[in-house]
Amino acid sequence: MIERTHCEQLDRDDPLAKVRSRFALPAGVIYLDGNSLGPMPATMPARLATVMDQWREDLITSWNRHGWHTAPQRIGAKIARLIGAAPHEVIVADSTSINLFKLLVAACRARPGRSVIVTEDGNFPTDRYIVDSVAELLGLTVRSAPRDALDASLDGDVAVVAVTQVDYRTGHLHDLGDVTAAAHNVGALMLWDLAHSAGVVPIDLRGVGADLAVGCGYKYLNGGPGAPAYVFVAEALQPDLRQPLTGWHGHAAPFALEDAYRPARGIDRLLCGTAPVLSLLALEEGMEIFHDIDMTDVRQKSQALTSLFIELVETRLADRGFELATPRDAARRGSQVSWGHEHAYAIMQALIAGGVIGDFREPNLLRFGFAPLYNQYVDVFDAVAAMIEVMDSDAWDRHEFRTRQEVT
Amino acid sequence: MIERTHCEQLDRDDPLAKVRSRFALPAGVIYLDGNSLGPMPATMPARLATVMDQWREDLITSWNRHGWHTAPQRIGAKIARLIGAAPHEVIVADSTSINLFKLLVAACRARPGRSVIVTEDGNFPTDRYIVDSVAELLGLTVRSAPRDALDASLDGDVAVVAVTQVDYRTGHLHDLGDVTAAAHNVGALMLWDLAHSAGVVPIDLRGVGADLAVGCGYKYLNGGPGAPAYVFVAEALQPDLRQPLTGWHGHAAPFALEDAYRPARGIDRLLCGTAPVLSLLALEEGMEIFHDIDMTDVRQKSQALTSLFIELVETRLADRGFELATPRDAARRGSQVSWGHEHAYAIMQALIAGGVIGDFREPNLLRFGFAPLYNQYVDVFDAVAAMIEVMDSDAWDRHEFRTRQEVT
Repeated sequence: MIERTHCEQLDRDDPLAKVRSRFALPAGVIYLDGNSLGPMPATMPARLATVMDQWREDLITSWNRHGWHTAPQRIGAKIARLIGAAPHEVIVADSTSINLFKLLVAACRARPGRSVIVTEDGNFPTDRYIVDSVAELLGLTVRSAPRDALDASLDGDVAVVAVTQVDYRTGHLHDLGDVTAAAHNVGALMLWDLAHSAGVVPIDLRGVGADLAVGCGYKYLNGGPGAPAYVFVAEALQPDLRQPLTGWHGHAAPFALEDAYRPARGIDRLLCGTAPVLSLLALEEGMEIFHDIDMTDVRQKSQALTSLFIELVETRLADRGFELATPRDAARRGSQVSWGHEHAYAIMQALIAGGVIGDFREPNLLRFGFAPLYNQYVDVFDAVAAMIEVMDSDAWDRHEFRTRQEVT
Repeated sequence: MIERTHCEQLDRDDPLAKVRSRFALPAGVIYLDGNSLGPMPATMPARLATVMDQWREDLITSWNRHGWHTAPQRIGAKIARLIGAAPHEVIVADSTSINLFKLLVAACRARPGRSVIVTEDGNFPTDRYIVDSVAELLGLTVRSAPRDALDASLDGDVAVVAVTQVDYRTGHLHDLGDVTAAAHNVGALMLWDLAHSAGVVPIDLRGVGADLAVGCGYKYLNGGPGAPAYVFVAEALQPDLRQPLTGWHGHAAPFALEDAYRPARGIDRLLCGTAPVLSLLALEEGMEIFHDIDMTDVRQKSQALTSLFIELVETRLADRGFELATPRDAARRGSQVSWGHEHAYAIMQALIAGGVIGDFREPNLLRFGFAPLYNQYVDVFDAVAAMIEVMDSDAWDRHEFRTRQEVT
């Protein structure tokens, strides 16, 4: 039996333990939902105060004077380090959905004569919606395959393969190299959604020769609610990439205000309109936390936390109806653990009411995200203790928890 | 000759004078560029501190608990009041460029069999770039007409007319009703860009029966740098409107995470991905300033400020090379005055260095925006005094001001 003191010892030995103080975490809460919204970096109020001072004092001149104009590239370069890209291969812009739209249209244009977009069953819905919309606009076909059988769906008709590295429900982790190679094998472009992997899983886009990627700023990158997203385009593809959201910030000379669109050189052509500066610079502050982080440490701790959680639930809550929905092999999962349970919704509501915040996913999943930069081993122990308490009481069965409301 | 004391009296008599204190304006600056970036509302630091407290303490649960989810609709309703729309006809989302893309594609889909998008010569470049991109995607043709001769370009092939109410360079104001009627006369949809008019010109979209509109949050709405933009769709068009950026927030049941896209009822279908909350709620704070403002007062003062400026420049800087680029008839212009000048760039740089902030627009325009909520009559007088000082010195002719740099 694992004791809490053992977890305390693991925390004392944790090379990432010191990073937790970089976050402003609320008292009395165990936060296992950083894959929906990362917590606030401790320095965020000071950073936003500075940005407001710039706005107030220097007004429009702040765009040049305080580097607002170059923030999308500057933050992109910081994200690049986490995902194995060169600094000039990543830029921050818009939302994940919008960036996916840009890249899908661009990818299909780059593979003329090919008529199919491949995605996977159970991909995050917004990804699927955007895939369907692009297919309709361009007169193409969508082919959706089971996550573990993408290979069989690939042939010479495929223009682009668009999948998510870590499944948002199960936490299953695609092998970045294998899937990319399979796409390339049929001459398709490979487009990754890194929303649930960047920041917790070491990623080497250049190493595997990936073509395109999008990702999210507000989950494991801790950029704040609705933080802008990012785009990766491999250097070799940049000069010919033609994306359809041709806003002025993607122009070769944005302030010349020319009548005809000429895409900027390189990754800048993925920009569209003016970026939301407050949210954009908040993301930069979130990325500051990663400046000295070794992603190998992160992955090691992530696997240890999720393994510990699985072991504790399976030993201490055996025969209570929890069914592991996440790969048991730590190498095959991201940084989350999901459990199927008949009363998942009510149980999660009771847990949240008690200060253990995970989330519920339709139809019956309890999802717990583990962020190695701030979650502790004792958090895992205490979360399981809270689960036991909920199951041993009638808390989860009370009416208030059985009324399904909108869940974020 | 108009004296400064006369301007002081005008300020004392100004019913909007009390509104100026709602802004945090820097000392020693006359800000005539609110049409590029509005100044900071005085309550902004407190509002953002509150939002950060919500994020820190309530984390993911803030989306419901603190009304983050409903902010796009809530702020849209406030903007609706300024533009003559019903509350449920306006929503805040993404950037102006992206919203224009959504509406253009949707408009062309709503007019099948029509092959032409009409826009105007000299439209704001990002509008033109997006028009061109949509035409390419849908296999349509772009027809660009002079601003004062749109009528002649309209016929039964036109799906949508997309123009900007106030020209960003000259300040020329389209008659909302006339242009809308002309578009409807040939069975086309009317799409307005209100970026340079909303907040300074009374607008009655419902009154003129306009179909679609987009606008900007960071100019006269004072929502902060890169604040999210907004979209208007007339109620009658909403049920059938099909826009292509089908992100999950535009879904009828966003959190059911269904596999197939079903657009939300009404204006919510214009949403795409997750909104940047810090920038979004900053825009809400900007809109607070308008809660008790009568747009008739705003228009009256706007016309008085711009008329005073024209008169002062033409009397006190006669024969100094300034050529009025804005309609002399106050009824035909928005809230800006632009002057052509051979040395426009250098003169504007010298003015900015001296604390009078306007902006330069290619190829030879000095542009001054007048925001009746915070600009004073004495600001107009003092700005002209600064122009005289610059022209009488060699300031504008010095090397530092003649090196053209990127201008925001």
